[in-house]
Amino acid sequence: MKSKSPSVVVDTRQSAKARFRPIPLDSITFGEGFWKNRQQTIRNTSLKLQFEECEKTGRLENFRIASGRRTGTRSGLVFNDSDVYKLLEAASWALASESDEVLEQLIDTAIDEIAAAQQSNGYLNTAFMFDNEGLRYTDLKNDHELYCYGHMIQAAIAHKRSTGKETFFDIAIRVAQHLLDTFGPGKLESTDGHEEIELALVELYRETGTQEYLNLAHFFLSMRGQSDTTMTGGENRVHGTDRSYFQDHLPVSEQHEADGHAVRLTYLASGMADVELEGAGDGMQSALDSIWDSAHLRRSSVTGGIGARYQGEAFGDDYELPNERAYNETCASLGSIFWNWRMLNLTGEAKYAEVIERQLFNGALSGLSIDGTGYFYMNPLTSAGGYSRTPWFTCACCPPNIARLIMSLASYFYSEHDQELWIHQYASGSVQASGLSLAVDTDYPWSGDIRVTVTGNSTVEHSILLRVPEWATNSTVVINNESAISMVEGTYHRISRKWSPGDTLAINFPIGPRRIYSHPRITNNSGRVSLARGPLIYCLESADQTGSSVFDLALAPNTEIAATYDPNLLGGLTLLKASGTELERTSISSLYSDARTDQNGSKPKELIAIPYYAWGNRGDSQMQVWIPEK
Amino acid sequence: MKSKSPSVVVDTRQSAKARFRPIPLDSITFGEGFWKNRQQTIRNTSLKLQFEECEKTGRLENFRIASGRRTGTRSGLVFNDSDVYKLLEAASWALASESDEVLEQLIDTAIDEIAAAQQSNGYLNTAFMFDNEGLRYTDLKNDHELYCYGHMIQAAIAHKRSTGKETFFDIAIRVAQHLLDTFGPGKLESTDGHEEIELALVELYRETGTQEYLNLAHFFLSMRGQSDTTMTGGENRVHGTDRSYFQDHLPVSEQHEADGHAVRLTYLASGMADVELEGAGDGMQSALDSIWDSAHLRRSSVTGGIGARYQGEAFGDDYELPNERAYNETCASLGSIFWNWRMLNLTGEAKYAEVIERQLFNGALSGLSIDGTGYFYMNPLTSAGGYSRTPWFTCACCPPNIARLIMSLASYFYSEHDQELWIHQYASGSVQASGLSLAVDTDYPWSGDIRVTVTGNSTVEHSILLRVPEWATNSTVVINNESAISMVEGTYHRISRKWSPGDTLAINFPIGPRRIYSHPRITNNSGRVSLARGPLIYCLESADQTGSSVFDLALAPNTEIAATYDPNLLGGLTLLKASGTELERTSISSLYSDARTDQNGSKPKELIAIPYYAWGNRGDSQMQVWIPEK
Repeated sequence: MKSKSPSVVVDTRQSAKARFRPIPLDSITFGEGFWKNRQQTIRNTSLKLQFEECEKTGRLENFRIASGRRTGTRSGLVFNDSDVYKLLEAASWALASESDEVLEQLIDTAIDEIAAAQQSNGYLNTAFMFDNEGLRYTDLKNDHELYCYGHMIQAAIAHKRSTGKETFFDIAIRVAQHLLDTFGPGKLESTDGHEEIELALVELYRETGTQEYLNLAHFFLSMRGQSDTTMTGGENRVHGTDRSYFQDHLPVSEQHEADGHAVRLTYLASGMADVELEGAGDGMQSALDSIWDSAHLRRSSVTGGIGARYQGEAFGDDYELPNERAYNETCASLGSIFWNWRMLNLTGEAKYAEVIERQLFNGALSGLSIDGTGYFYMNPLTSAGGYSRTPWFTCACCPPNIARLIMSLASYFYSEHDQELWIHQYASGSVQASGLSLAVDTDYPWSGDIRVTVTGNSTVEHSILLRVPEWATNSTVVINNESAISMVEGTYHRISRKWSPGDTLAINFPIGPRRIYSHPRITNNSGRVSLARGPLIYCLESADQTGSSVFDLALAPNTEIAATYDPNLLGGLTLLKASGTELERTSISSLYSDARTDQNGSKPKELIAIPYYAWGNRGDSQMQVWIPEK
Repeated sequence: MKSKSPSVVVDTRQSAKARFRPIPLDSITFGEGFWKNRQQTIRNTSLKLQFEECEKTGRLENFRIASGRRTGTRSGLVFNDSDVYKLLEAASWALASESDEVLEQLIDTAIDEIAAAQQSNGYLNTAFMFDNEGLRYTDLKNDHELYCYGHMIQAAIAHKRSTGKETFFDIAIRVAQHLLDTFGPGKLESTDGHEEIELALVELYRETGTQEYLNLAHFFLSMRGQSDTTMTGGENRVHGTDRSYFQDHLPVSEQHEADGHAVRLTYLASGMADVELEGAGDGMQSALDSIWDSAHLRRSSVTGGIGARYQGEAFGDDYELPNERAYNETCASLGSIFWNWRMLNLTGEAKYAEVIERQLFNGALSGLSIDGTGYFYMNPLTSAGGYSRTPWFTCACCPPNIARLIMSLASYFYSEHDQELWIHQYASGSVQASGLSLAVDTDYPWSGDIRVTVTGNSTVEHSILLRVPEWATNSTVVINNESAISMVEGTYHRISRKWSPGDTLAINFPIGPRRIYSHPRITNNSGRVSLARGPLIYCLESADQTGSSVFDLALAPNTEIAATYDPNLLGGLTLLKASGTELERTSISSLYSDARTDQNGSKPKELIAIPYYAWGNRGDSQMQVWIPEK
């Protein structure tokens, strides 16, 4: 086994503009608790089912056909190779912290089949073989060839960083050389309709030090917003001539709104932030900042979900935030995490870690069922029923995407820099940084009490930076048995001192249930409230309302909201209960009337809310996040 | 000039199941007032501009190319012929009541070019000529060939009924023979992805008495919901394999929801109702009833607008009624009028005339600018700005469609049957029925007072049926100087007596401003109210709010709403004024917060509302129909 690079997702150790350095997955453990449960579910259930789905649906067979090991016709969507790559990335991250022979065998077999399908010039895409060879790179708008390469490169790096093996990495290097041979000034001057290659090439640069990869990433970014024929191919089948769909309407440094297809936008912004981190962004920072503001201050659901529109899976206008028809693709929330992680690395600003937490616990996590077997592609904020999880999709981007995020999740929890250890997210477990080792004990997100203990043998001068969530007003930390120190929400609270083994930090984030209201411009939510506790957004699901329709329920204003942990419900979770009313609906039949039908007779009713991520795990149901308050 | 058939849109004189008979356009006049103004605008402005657009955009040139009179390449969307047909229909109806040499010349020239393009076997579609001949009828799902024929047949009938000329009608008869030769049991057993041919063939049957046309209409209906290859062609470019998009998911008599593309649905239902009217519906009535309930009791905007979704221009789920993203295509409201007119003819039930009125004054009319030069394709209920009228569209279905409706509008106002004269809609003017002639004097919709005077020379025993709008509670009618009679809203009020010249009916529909509330399941509208007066739905437009954002305004509950007629504003209209509040927004920046930002400081503000149809006529603006009430 060759020597391993650190098992991190984004290796900013040498990045010119990185605020801090990553801590490898094998230096972090998750103890029993929320995220470890999720990782075990994915490891034990989801990954193996996803391999089965890739087999059943021909995604793996496509590589065998491409290599000539099997005869047959390639099947499925043009970007199906990428699902295999993302799954291999997820499975590779799973090996970073725990060995698993079955999984390793599945990975190695798949890599072997991928290797066999690669052509001598490095080209590898199962959709453009044999009779279709002539179509290579002729329709970059729609064909996702570079997108697939991006996922392959990310997966290959994950595999190398997790296992030390270079079997997959060698394939990726040959692909990268093929890209250098094919694309660039004076060669094919074009770019892909779906961003992804950019961030992958930057990571390959980080892994190898090869400057050309960074240059090519920059080149692909710079090809956006050029002439309308720069991107090869005809009209996009669905989106016609609307170039904002793939963020091709303006040069990237001139883009200021979160426009177009939401996943594409987050991958673009991730790539831009990556190039910026390497000091090669030349002016991208200000575009990144305004696109971030657009996405997060005017175009996000309370769950973090982005991409409000079904049409084009796209961002809507400012404040266009529907509930029933919130598209909020799982992959867009994942892309938001990738993007915000890079922004956090650029700046050290807590607001980026805040978005990561919001997406993790809400917009992204709702995409995965409690038992790890079912997925949501869209994550609406209201459902009248008839929308349920499925084990796979024809367009299966989301399942392996959430798997790779969660299997590499610890990578997003801590950073280090000189004499600093940054804690971005909270979970029980441990972290070993170069200067300091910590044990963390908490029931987060069910509890806001977190106990951090210094471990190791020596006393060191060091700073610990604790992210104080924006919702955590009146937070305190007690160091050893000293008096409580107040912390400001929405910031990193720095504690610099000489730490000795056994020192403790007793953090309290007041996590108690709270009400969230919308900006008045979100007209759909006027008169409505959502419930939250800690980082979790809650919802009413019909299964908990003893026969009432969630659409007949209203929350009483100013009433107390009680929190109760139920270890047996949906893997264990804290319920919220509050008094409210149930509308009597029998007399209402017309759609519009002269009477305020919402003021018809009503009777008292206890409302029970569950975390949003947990809905849709008990069969077909109705669900509502924004509840009338009256 | 040959003898004319009556100038009516739907000639139910012989229809087996028709509740009453139509009254020709030349037996009805509109006096000065709301609809006459609109007709004059279309006659003087819109029609000529639309002919110019059809010339500029190649729609007319396409016929010259198809006939070989010009060389060149056919341009534009596959269904562009239909825009020319609809425009010819509109222009023909314009000639029914008033001669216009310029218009007549434009029509005759176009008909001559269309005639030249028709092939000897009757085939005529400019998109499938020369090299494309082999594609004829190979993709009925997407190619709209029968849809275009339908509009041509309707236009040709309108031309014949309005002018007595048969130049266009002869073309249509040859097309119809071509369809009989081509489609049917044992021939090509298929149907069109966009319904329209069915209702046109029924009308051609009514015009000619040729039973085969009715049979063919029934055949085309019966081909829906058969195998998924019945409709020729591959996947719909936009909608993939979703057969409900074109109402092809079930046999028509088994359809019970308003599903799929909204315009298609209304044209399908119109065709079904037409076949049913002719006694050939075999079981379609119950499907029609439940589809009607679905569309009108659960899936309509307060403006009448239908087809809530951008994606697929389609109906949403029950109660899925967005505001910003209400698609509500103008053509869908027009289709609703066509459909409801046929339902009214089947049943004589006032609810159908009610929908026609709601669409006329709101959902449909908003599609046309006051000056007749600009159109809306979508009719949202909220706009944050940036949405404005345009003089034409690449897909230009709406402009000629609203023109043909308004130029034939009188056809929807009255019916007769034996000793009955039915008044469905109100406008000043006159009507001459077989038994009775009336003069109508009113400022409707600005006033709810309508004076009907019996004209003519003789005394007759007859019934007059007055539709009492659903909103007109406490309506009365005074006959001559007798005591007032109460009328029940949402019904036809029948007055049977011996009428003498000079007899009068003084009708009062209390039209005063009112508030409308939504069914509680329309979550977007909770806590919100819309304003209405008579048949008109109102909205707040930024131009009237002296600098305030319409999104900061709220209406005070229970406050009086004042109505003022302004003859100079937007062609003359009644404004509504009411006291409310303006939110102070300076302190609100975050999208979500723990505080009810809608309860921030506010100051008193007078709200001014205009009729919804009149918005978007004063440059870029913000608009809102549903106003917070607090």
